[in-house]
Amino acid sequence: MVPHLRTALTGALSDIEHKMLAATPMIERWFRMEWQEHTPPFYSSVDLRNAGFKLAPVDTNLFPGGFNNLAEEMFPLATQAAMAAIEKYCPDARNLLIIPELHTRNPFYLQNVAQLSKIMRLTGLNVRLGSLSKDITTPTAINLPNGETLTLEPLERNGRRLTLDGGRFDPCTILLNNDLSAGQPTILENIKEQFLLPPLHAGWTVRRKSTHFKAYDDVAKKFSKALGTDPWLINPYHAHASNINFNERTGEDELAHTVEVLLKKITKKYKEYGITDKPFLIVKADAGTYGMGIMTVRSPDDVKDLNRKQRNKMAVVKDGLEVHDVLIQEGVPTIETLHNSTAEPVVYMIDRYVVGGFYRINGERGVDENLNSAGMHFETMPFIKESERRADDLGLLHNRFYPYGVVGRLAMLAASIELEKTDPNPENQIG
Amino acid sequence: MVPHLRTALTGALSDIEHKMLAATPMIERWFRMEWQEHTPPFYSSVDLRNAGFKLAPVDTNLFPGGFNNLAEEMFPLATQAAMAAIEKYCPDARNLLIIPELHTRNPFYLQNVAQLSKIMRLTGLNVRLGSLSKDITTPTAINLPNGETLTLEPLERNGRRLTLDGGRFDPCTILLNNDLSAGQPTILENIKEQFLLPPLHAGWTVRRKSTHFKAYDDVAKKFSKALGTDPWLINPYHAHASNINFNERTGEDELAHTVEVLLKKITKKYKEYGITDKPFLIVKADAGTYGMGIMTVRSPDDVKDLNRKQRNKMAVVKDGLEVHDVLIQEGVPTIETLHNSTAEPVVYMIDRYVVGGFYRINGERGVDENLNSAGMHFETMPFIKESERRADDLGLLHNRFYPYGVVGRLAMLAASIELEKTDPNPENQIG
Repeated sequence: MVPHLRTALTGALSDIEHKMLAATPMIERWFRMEWQEHTPPFYSSVDLRNAGFKLAPVDTNLFPGGFNNLAEEMFPLATQAAMAAIEKYCPDARNLLIIPELHTRNPFYLQNVAQLSKIMRLTGLNVRLGSLSKDITTPTAINLPNGETLTLEPLERNGRRLTLDGGRFDPCTILLNNDLSAGQPTILENIKEQFLLPPLHAGWTVRRKSTHFKAYDDVAKKFSKALGTDPWLINPYHAHASNINFNERTGEDELAHTVEVLLKKITKKYKEYGITDKPFLIVKADAGTYGMGIMTVRSPDDVKDLNRKQRNKMAVVKDGLEVHDVLIQEGVPTIETLHNSTAEPVVYMIDRYVVGGFYRINGERGVDENLNSAGMHFETMPFIKESERRADDLGLLHNRFYPYGVVGRLAMLAASIELEKTDPNPENQIG
Repeated sequence: MVPHLRTALTGALSDIEHKMLAATPMIERWFRMEWQEHTPPFYSSVDLRNAGFKLAPVDTNLFPGGFNNLAEEMFPLATQAAMAAIEKYCPDARNLLIIPELHTRNPFYLQNVAQLSKIMRLTGLNVRLGSLSKDITTPTAINLPNGETLTLEPLERNGRRLTLDGGRFDPCTILLNNDLSAGQPTILENIKEQFLLPPLHAGWTVRRKSTHFKAYDDVAKKFSKALGTDPWLINPYHAHASNINFNERTGEDELAHTVEVLLKKITKKYKEYGITDKPFLIVKADAGTYGMGIMTVRSPDDVKDLNRKQRNKMAVVKDGLEVHDVLIQEGVPTIETLHNSTAEPVVYMIDRYVVGGFYRINGERGVDENLNSAGMHFETMPFIKESERRADDLGLLHNRFYPYGVVGRLAMLAASIELEKTDPNPENQIG
């Protein structure tokens, strides 16, 4: 089940959208069987691209930072899903500690933290925020643009436990909303008595996009076999290149060669499907996020003729993490626009449930570019009421968001498998 | 977690409401621990009474028939909860058979069946309706007032399985929306290979209100101990009388004696809490539903001086079921009114989740009478948006529906324990 949200597209259904909508009972059963084998991450968000001819995930985030962009109607759904997750991990939980990102001056991010706290409070937990920042040495109230206040408290290590307030707040569960791009803080290591969700190896110190998309290859293949479709329709080609130093210009030739091979593969597929667009690739840091270290590549030369500015942009991502490994991903053009700006949907999930979505919009970027950059803003996807569904409007009659929810969940399933494979302590897994 | 719905009450919180709202984290944890031990019924609805001085369940229905009365915003929540339930019982389910009540001429009930079917379809199941009625011998389309169509098909027994359409529709799961007041049909017996939800012993052929409220006594005691309150504040006193024949006037004296004892117990409690209302009782058939076989009793004489009409009313309930056993329940006056009519809330649950609610309203009945009678209608409880919550309106600032959701879930928990205790095949229980 995927809630009926309003997508930007309203015309005729594409082939893959149509196939998924028609196969709903098969698809839902397929997911139910998969969740018998795998445990979904506590929460996740997936950036999608709908090219018309294909619908694919381009990025899977295990520390979603945009709960503030979901429609208010989604909160009961999100809360119910969070209840199911808490019940699975730690039914006896009373107190929940949320560890947010360090950038405490971004009011949008802080509103995300406020909304996430609200959802977790509605599940019936006492929620407090513990900061990894050295600047937070006493409880610090931060005013949000909407008039609410957040209080960040300094994290304490009490033997094997993380606490707040001189040990007076002792959580059984710790929810990380910090992707650990800055490295794995010592204070979070060897926590055995408390549940850390998601686990440390979901952070960018361990996580690699190439590992995720390798897991997604298998998921897409298995799902497409069940649906009777070509896996390429939901899966971007990708490759991995390592030992690159953008500043010292090492590894460039190998990267250019990989780009060439991949562009040829896509060109072949484009011919097979009669697609006249020019293929392109997205090269991005294998670890890290926030739209840094990303470029659009249309020919092998594009990775050889980088100027100083481009090199600097690719060499270092968020929190100073150096880039030596990149994912080279088939670019999926988006056919979605909102207010005449390029748009891509983001699907939000808690546990195995789709709990909402929004559009990332960027008026300064083209359909073949990363939208997570200057000029970006977000627009909530609202619920569609039954009375609004009209037979003359295919986008409303069908739940056009359903295929987005399917692809989002497929990427989430890949993340589950990825986390199983990279778990340093596999015996701790909850089945 | 309980969604924030609009209650009729908006004034200051009563003591018990206030205590429950303040203890939310404790309460939610308490429920999580209970659901580790007990399995909730697939779905349920609970009629509540808010007297101000107490807030208590008066009836628990395991075959809810008012899904059509829930606000449209509740459907995603209901669907997500149904997904969780299906996953627990039968993750490999493809086809779901719903068996509705026989009264196919009640358009309100049929709209309930249509909404329930819609919820189950949204979970990704193929849903069809099988009728127990002898009048349904071929697939029969029924037009609903809202323009939709329902198709009832004749049920078939194929060896150990129930099927439709000459065996072509072979469900793994059968959802009963028929309370079996008319007796347990042979066609439903010894179904071992398919999941029957809820189980046959949840029907009124086996179920007894007195057994339910005995289980509720224990639940209310345990919960109230955790909350630090008097269990009476959430639990109506009750007693049971058997071997009654209203037509032959046997068992009357015993009943009158029980009434006297119970009224004295309530009077004592009323004094303890300084309540100046006159106590009353509700006498109702121990098995059966639909507001039949119910009367308000204010003194022992009330059960001795029944006229012929009253006797007839009490002697037989729905589908001709004869009444020999009655539950004598402390009457809980309602302080809620809507449009100047007496009102009582009904809480809807799927699996362990509160998924909505509505008011039962009756302009022809008083605050101490059964509202499930001629003149009854329903009013949806809508969601309250965050922007609607104002500090000057206590009913909106707090989730006043929360205590209703708590009491609803307590009654649902009692039903779980009741079904465990009355299960003829306890080894089949899903833990």
